[in-house]
Amino acid sequence: MIPTKLIPRTAEASEPPLLIKSLLAQSLKYEPQREIVYRDLFRMNYVEFNQRVRQLANVLAELDVKAGDTVAVLDWDSHRYLECFFGVTSVGAILHTVNVRLSPAQILYTMNHAEDKIVLIHEDFLPILAAIKDQLTTVEKFIILSDKVYGSQTDLSDIPNYFSGEYEALLKGAPSDYDFPDFDENTWATTFYTTGTTGNPKGVYFSHRQLFMHTMGLLAYIIGYEAMPFKGTTDVYMPITPMFHVHAWGFPFLATMMSAKQVYPGRYEPELLLKLLIKEGVTLSHCVPTILNMLVSNPAAQKFRENLSRWKVLIGGSALTKGLAQTATDLGIRVMAGYGMSETAPVMAVAYLNEQEKELSKEEQIELSTRAGRISPFIEMRLMDDEGNFVPHDGHSLGEIVARGPWLTQGYYNDPERGAELWKGGWLHTGDVASITPDYWVMIADRTKDVIKTGGEWVSSLDMENMLSQVEGVAESAVVGLPDARWGERPHALIVQKPGYNLTAEGIKSKLQAQVDCGELHKWYVPDHILFVSEIPKTSVGKIDKKRIRSEMKEQILAS
Amino acid sequence: MIPTKLIPRTAEASEPPLLIKSLLAQSLKYEPQREIVYRDLFRMNYVEFNQRVRQLANVLAELDVKAGDTVAVLDWDSHRYLECFFGVTSVGAILHTVNVRLSPAQILYTMNHAEDKIVLIHEDFLPILAAIKDQLTTVEKFIILSDKVYGSQTDLSDIPNYFSGEYEALLKGAPSDYDFPDFDENTWATTFYTTGTTGNPKGVYFSHRQLFMHTMGLLAYIIGYEAMPFKGTTDVYMPITPMFHVHAWGFPFLATMMSAKQVYPGRYEPELLLKLLIKEGVTLSHCVPTILNMLVSNPAAQKFRENLSRWKVLIGGSALTKGLAQTATDLGIRVMAGYGMSETAPVMAVAYLNEQEKELSKEEQIELSTRAGRISPFIEMRLMDDEGNFVPHDGHSLGEIVARGPWLTQGYYNDPERGAELWKGGWLHTGDVASITPDYWVMIADRTKDVIKTGGEWVSSLDMENMLSQVEGVAESAVVGLPDARWGERPHALIVQKPGYNLTAEGIKSKLQAQVDCGELHKWYVPDHILFVSEIPKTSVGKIDKKRIRSEMKEQILAS
Repeated sequence: MIPTKLIPRTAEASEPPLLIKSLLAQSLKYEPQREIVYRDLFRMNYVEFNQRVRQLANVLAELDVKAGDTVAVLDWDSHRYLECFFGVTSVGAILHTVNVRLSPAQILYTMNHAEDKIVLIHEDFLPILAAIKDQLTTVEKFIILSDKVYGSQTDLSDIPNYFSGEYEALLKGAPSDYDFPDFDENTWATTFYTTGTTGNPKGVYFSHRQLFMHTMGLLAYIIGYEAMPFKGTTDVYMPITPMFHVHAWGFPFLATMMSAKQVYPGRYEPELLLKLLIKEGVTLSHCVPTILNMLVSNPAAQKFRENLSRWKVLIGGSALTKGLAQTATDLGIRVMAGYGMSETAPVMAVAYLNEQEKELSKEEQIELSTRAGRISPFIEMRLMDDEGNFVPHDGHSLGEIVARGPWLTQGYYNDPERGAELWKGGWLHTGDVASITPDYWVMIADRTKDVIKTGGEWVSSLDMENMLSQVEGVAESAVVGLPDARWGERPHALIVQKPGYNLTAEGIKSKLQAQVDCGELHKWYVPDHILFVSEIPKTSVGKIDKKRIRSEMKEQILAS
Repeated sequence: MIPTKLIPRTAEASEPPLLIKSLLAQSLKYEPQREIVYRDLFRMNYVEFNQRVRQLANVLAELDVKAGDTVAVLDWDSHRYLECFFGVTSVGAILHTVNVRLSPAQILYTMNHAEDKIVLIHEDFLPILAAIKDQLTTVEKFIILSDKVYGSQTDLSDIPNYFSGEYEALLKGAPSDYDFPDFDENTWATTFYTTGTTGNPKGVYFSHRQLFMHTMGLLAYIIGYEAMPFKGTTDVYMPITPMFHVHAWGFPFLATMMSAKQVYPGRYEPELLLKLLIKEGVTLSHCVPTILNMLVSNPAAQKFRENLSRWKVLIGGSALTKGLAQTATDLGIRVMAGYGMSETAPVMAVAYLNEQEKELSKEEQIELSTRAGRISPFIEMRLMDDEGNFVPHDGHSLGEIVARGPWLTQGYYNDPERGAELWKGGWLHTGDVASITPDYWVMIADRTKDVIKTGGEWVSSLDMENMLSQVEGVAESAVVGLPDARWGERPHALIVQKPGYNLTAEGIKSKLQAQVDCGELHKWYVPDHILFVSEIPKTSVGKIDKKRIRSEMKEQILAS
């Protein structure tokens, strides 16, 4: 930062901080008649929504929630959750969006670590709560979230008596006006936990300013540049990435600011998702590839081609394959990949096709749409090698993605060591290895811990696995780097054969060598050893467990 | 501001300041092949533009411009000016956009007051410079801006020898890379002067953060909500409000961030404006009503209906009349009024028709489009009475417009007294009297100094003049408030009769009384005195000089 001349300020002059309440304020200005829908159970317009957010603020005050206190929510995607996005944060409290997919032990860890004071919990998660309740160290009060109150069945007698009340009943008893105060824009607004393969879950956190700016980034990219054309004026939004997962990628903030019609589907059930999509006219969503695959494979999908042809879906979480993109495109769905992570609030890149690229063939367009994306507005991204040098953006050189931007977590809560690692050298280290083209396209190649560093070159284990998969008779493969005295590391492969084949290491190597000879492959890509196995070690979520392969199978591989 | 818990920051973590350079960075990411055009003389794409902005930064460094120094520009609307918007500010210097329409004495005053160090000046303004040059107290160096270098005529021998060089030649000699530094987002970026009826011009000023946020406000409103639908992807922008006038309403920042095609027309010449509009396919502009009137009255306009039907124009500066809006609409032009002032960077309201209003008759839509506008995103607006109480937003109660928002000048430079007046009570006082509807429409009624305060009610002098104009035989009228022992103030009228009429005060009063009797008019609106005059006193710019009427004609009026 160089010294400059700052603007002088008259004593009484003011410049408002960038707060979430300012996004909320827009929702009343232009199209307050638009609706927010919860499953087939509840609907309201933005005037009612604004009143309910203020009722919630009054309920929190009544329960003695103060600025700086943490309020945890365990819920499926709901209008209540949206009310918490705005109400909890706008009173100056911190919203902990609890990942309900973690194990009870991990949930317990995160709730104690985040120092949750009040917990809003959906009745579906009462069994989890029962298991951990007595070990919660900071929680003082509980509010139950029940869907029964929207239906005819309203018997809540089975709710344990340690609850302070039921959400709707509490809201009903509270005044609908509340003057949200001004406070520092760097006020802590949200927190949630991300799990790695080792260690305890890590708490990331975001300020009001960061979430405001993330909304501006989405506004510029999704609406301004039409990366994923979303018109507040006509589009209808439904999240299919959980709200506890990086604020449903920040879209609820944008949709609310735009007073767009929003549909919250509760627990994800394929049939209901499709039904809501059709009935409420949903045109914009985001989800992981698995969910998209589940939806497009549903027999009902073909029946609803007309509705699906208005649907735009941003895909993230893991790579969008060309096959899935093609299937979706054939149904008329517009799909685009995006890239980000919990630490980055999350959006850092979205596939945006520019004027020239829109003239390309459908096939080439699909290839672009499945890339990790083009760097988002206001995000600065670089590739870095092991020594902290920048790697050129030439479309093929590999480096770790490092980033700067207005919405990146500034550390991990109460974990200075891993926070310092994340921000080593003043750049946020993503742990992803990629190349970047001169025109800002990002192509993920690997994770830093899996990329193979051989003779000064970085070799993507994923690329090599793709290459091996194309060899006839290979059912599955895994490539890992193992230490090598001369080259630092060398690639080694595990291969599962298809039934009826009798592949040999020499045979595969000679096929790869042929590719080397005609210049399609660098010679250092050819694995030193190829080990045939009946099964490739996987993690609990089905990913190849390269860490285990490297440690447990090292001897076996080297002997092959 | 209440105390809250701020986000903790890891030592090396960073969050970039909101700087103008960050808007510039977007122009390279997505559509860098788009063009910036200057008259029929010069064109370049965004890659070249970015290089030129950096060449300018190197030229400034060469001329010893440091962070905090002020660089003045006197130019018509040009690509050079746009380069200064980004280049001057991004090195940490302050851009003084000199109002070339002021008198030489006023220009001199503003340049000395702003402490200009370097001056970039178009050859057209050399006569002004000659007149004031010797009295400039802080200027060290001059750069000449000449259009000759883009044509065949490149003889610059008549340029006085105290110039450090010609803009294009200096750029050509400078490196095209420059690493714009990070600095405090509250760094002073721009300054310019606004003139009132009394006193010296007042210097307003804006920080990087304020101009960044103004761009976000326009992005949300103009592009997001489609108040004045502007698609970076297809629209072509041409300013017809000077760049020295409140940064051409901030649109050049938005257009650049969107890498939209931009057309800069130099000095405004109706024929060339129309020619550029057609030839370059301009679809978005902004101007004052006078300019729009000049363009739609041009005989060539009818010939270009097809092109004009793609043109959208934001109107500000003074009220858009229904007549002009109708004429423009008949030509297929989409016109919308906006509201703002120099002190507010400027946009605070734009006419935005929501879903229901778009269903109204064409006539009703035109009525809405000519209102001052609907309150902009992120702007908070209230109506205030003399005691500092808020007036309800009921669509008829009058009060002074006061505002808060992320892009309002925080005072007047070196003028603490008038700055404190501007910000009295923590709200920026606009000096405009208006009513606001519950759905955020702003309707300007008067200036605070002209509104008549009678018996606790505010009466709009403009409304009354409109009413009197509708009386048969009235050619022109002026209504002012004069002190009254019982009511505080009472309205009094001056009337110019049309030839051949013989109106009387009693006759007019009885006509107004008839309106009172049938409930069309409040009884306190009827003027106490009506004085017939041959001419109504006007200011130099043709506005009714109510100040002079109140002071000089008081006795005469009261005797009538």
